[in-house]
Amino acid sequence: METTVTIVPSARIRTPEVASHIGETVRVAGWLHSLRRLGGVSFLVVRDGWGVVQAVVEQEAELAPIRAAGAGVESVITVSGRVTAAPQAPGGVELREISVEVIEAISEAPPVALNKREIRASLATILETAVVTNRHPARRAILRLGAGVIAGFRKTMLARDFTEIQSPKIVAAATEGGANVFALDYFGRPAYLAQSPQFYKQMMVGVFERVFEVGPVFRAEPHDTTRHLNEYVSLDMEMGFIEDHFTVMAVLRDVMSGIMAELRERYGAELTLLGARMPEVPAVIPHIHFSEAQELILALHGMDVRGEPDLSPQDERWLGEWAQEERGSDFLYVTGYPMRKRPFYVYPDPARPEYSNSFDLLFRGTELVTGGQRLHRYADYLAALAAHNLPIEPFVEYLEAFRYGMPPEGGFAIGLERLLMQLLDLPNVKLAALFPRDLTRLTP
Amino acid sequence: METTVTIVPSARIRTPEVASHIGETVRVAGWLHSLRRLGGVSFLVVRDGWGVVQAVVEQEAELAPIRAAGAGVESVITVSGRVTAAPQAPGGVELREISVEVIEAISEAPPVALNKREIRASLATILETAVVTNRHPARRAILRLGAGVIAGFRKTMLARDFTEIQSPKIVAAATEGGANVFALDYFGRPAYLAQSPQFYKQMMVGVFERVFEVGPVFRAEPHDTTRHLNEYVSLDMEMGFIEDHFTVMAVLRDVMSGIMAELRERYGAELTLLGARMPEVPAVIPHIHFSEAQELILALHGMDVRGEPDLSPQDERWLGEWAQEERGSDFLYVTGYPMRKRPFYVYPDPARPEYSNSFDLLFRGTELVTGGQRLHRYADYLAALAAHNLPIEPFVEYLEAFRYGMPPEGGFAIGLERLLMQLLDLPNVKLAALFPRDLTRLTP
Repeated sequence: METTVTIVPSARIRTPEVASHIGETVRVAGWLHSLRRLGGVSFLVVRDGWGVVQAVVEQEAELAPIRAAGAGVESVITVSGRVTAAPQAPGGVELREISVEVIEAISEAPPVALNKREIRASLATILETAVVTNRHPARRAILRLGAGVIAGFRKTMLARDFTEIQSPKIVAAATEGGANVFALDYFGRPAYLAQSPQFYKQMMVGVFERVFEVGPVFRAEPHDTTRHLNEYVSLDMEMGFIEDHFTVMAVLRDVMSGIMAELRERYGAELTLLGARMPEVPAVIPHIHFSEAQELILALHGMDVRGEPDLSPQDERWLGEWAQEERGSDFLYVTGYPMRKRPFYVYPDPARPEYSNSFDLLFRGTELVTGGQRLHRYADYLAALAAHNLPIEPFVEYLEAFRYGMPPEGGFAIGLERLLMQLLDLPNVKLAALFPRDLTRLTP
Repeated sequence: METTVTIVPSARIRTPEVASHIGETVRVAGWLHSLRRLGGVSFLVVRDGWGVVQAVVEQEAELAPIRAAGAGVESVITVSGRVTAAPQAPGGVELREISVEVIEAISEAPPVALNKREIRASLATILETAVVTNRHPARRAILRLGAGVIAGFRKTMLARDFTEIQSPKIVAAATEGGANVFALDYFGRPAYLAQSPQFYKQMMVGVFERVFEVGPVFRAEPHDTTRHLNEYVSLDMEMGFIEDHFTVMAVLRDVMSGIMAELRERYGAELTLLGARMPEVPAVIPHIHFSEAQELILALHGMDVRGEPDLSPQDERWLGEWAQEERGSDFLYVTGYPMRKRPFYVYPDPARPEYSNSFDLLFRGTELVTGGQRLHRYADYLAALAAHNLPIEPFVEYLEAFRYGMPPEGGFAIGLERLLMQLLDLPNVKLAALFPRDLTRLTP
């Protein structure tokens, strides 16, 4: 059943605004989130794009339009009513003396109930019906926090005179190595989906000096874990005229602080709903050199990982505990990862060339961000490609950026969904994506 | 030749800041843009990520570090000097009593001169050497205006409570029809690159009501024109609770106004450099129905295009002239395009169902934005797919958004590079892209 009522957006208010209209009659519009009888009174909850508001049905006749249309949950409705304080209601207010209009009546129940506190469904069901489950207030809060993280990142970058870029995603060469890359046919030529904007953001340091990008990256990793997506959103930056990787780390500290400030200031409802444990970002994030970290693990836990080229997840957890206990910090920089585990463009530590001027940022014992100083001299690139047994030809244009003058430069990349997962203690990174792409999932 | 000087960003100022330090000694860092002798005096121009500043070389000895290093143009340098007013110099100031440091000496000349007012090279050369030519102040100004357009779009959206989303780019179904789509292998399954975020932004109306996205879209159009790119940046929005397409048009008017305001306020130097003719955005953009537009063309130009399902480029130019002369507007909405030329999700005009509730925004006689109201009822989608002889199966998840309640909704998409081309009178849209992708161009 359909009615022909149309709504002009200006004639309604959004649900978060209702609380500032106590005593007035307002109109909200949205979805019929729930309609329940409780102790002789019916409660109708409307969900709009920003929150929910509860309406008290004092007379059954007020529901006549809903009954007449056969409108069940997820029907699109408007509700007018007088705003009254109600400390026990969501947002501390409720609507009374209501009148209801039905815009679109829905009689079929959604595949997963959206009006329970938690979604009672398997991960597979949640993801396969994401078109509907993304409407659940808890799911939606996660996804909206994603927008908040991006906003905080962008504000911090813009305040520091970075220019936003959009680099091409169809590329001729695999940036991070030949494995794990999606291939496609580009008018008869082989092409790839960009694994990162790494080369482009570096080239653009020659143009704008300081650049950032928010965009998709594609990794054809053929394994299914709780921490991997095959397409994700990368928050990238790159800047010239650095002293070394510590300049980049100082900017990243400000970015993390800017992200947390943005979330606290503008996404309080979502953080509360999800029970997020918000971290303090120290004025200076503590740092430890890779080799010292390995010594520390031996001293504290009796595990000799010296000589290993990388940290294991267990190593990272131990280091996270140490940062928490000894430095009171949720964040820890590990610097100087061995050159042999890092890509060819990484800048070596001038004092100890077997280590690199790179870093990982650990957050609560898990790697969250990777970054560092990059080579910036043409001759160094030629030598590094030779040392890695890589051909020059696929990198010719990339190398031009360094052939014609580049200052010392570096940058980092944050995985958006990974950050959300860690911030919100999600059991799976897929829950932080709008519509995740994994080994078996190409829809919705 | 290399030196080991390192720069802490805080120890230098950016070139646009120099003018506010008259009488003081400052340090700038950047690229040696040019070094010329003129009437017995040498002028050295430094280009940093944001502009240029001129330094007057009063004694040849001041250039000793440059001569010693053999540093030619594009070398990375710092210049310290006293700021003096100089109305004829770029930015109205110049540096005197300078001292120079060379950070990276470059002896090889770039493939295209970057320090002439205009780039003297063919389009092909400009694009093939974009890694370097993007450094040219005129090229860079275009690219930076792209960031400004995005910033203006985003600010307008956020001020109207839209939520930013990032939808997947690897998809299972072609949104805008099966042609012109890049195919790839997704772990053994056929997949495509998204031709637009159309379906996803519509689905997300059910979640956030008002959404926008800035992201890449991919069109495998196998022809080479001055107006097409195979990958471009799309500024998309979609919103619920509209009255009809006129609600969307009102928001688009504000978006265009917000973009122009952002450019005027924060990108004045770039606009001046490029000689941009900035449009006034009327408080209400004039509109004309498709059928009236055809009648007008007959009346004014004697060309009978009635019955044609679309407007030709000549038709659009005539309508642009009419809007300019009769309404004093660079902008004109043409509404009600015939249903048969629009995609299956377009909402028909309830009064004249052969026409649609859609629109194009013409800017100076060329189509710039397409948008409109979409179907929002499940049954209407099933009927529309059947009428277009399209199978339901690829659209099952998309349809779920409408199956479980959706308000009347609509949106639009702006092509970033197209907008820049038209605003700046560029001869080719490829000049508005960072690193364009076309029929033959997959690098840089």
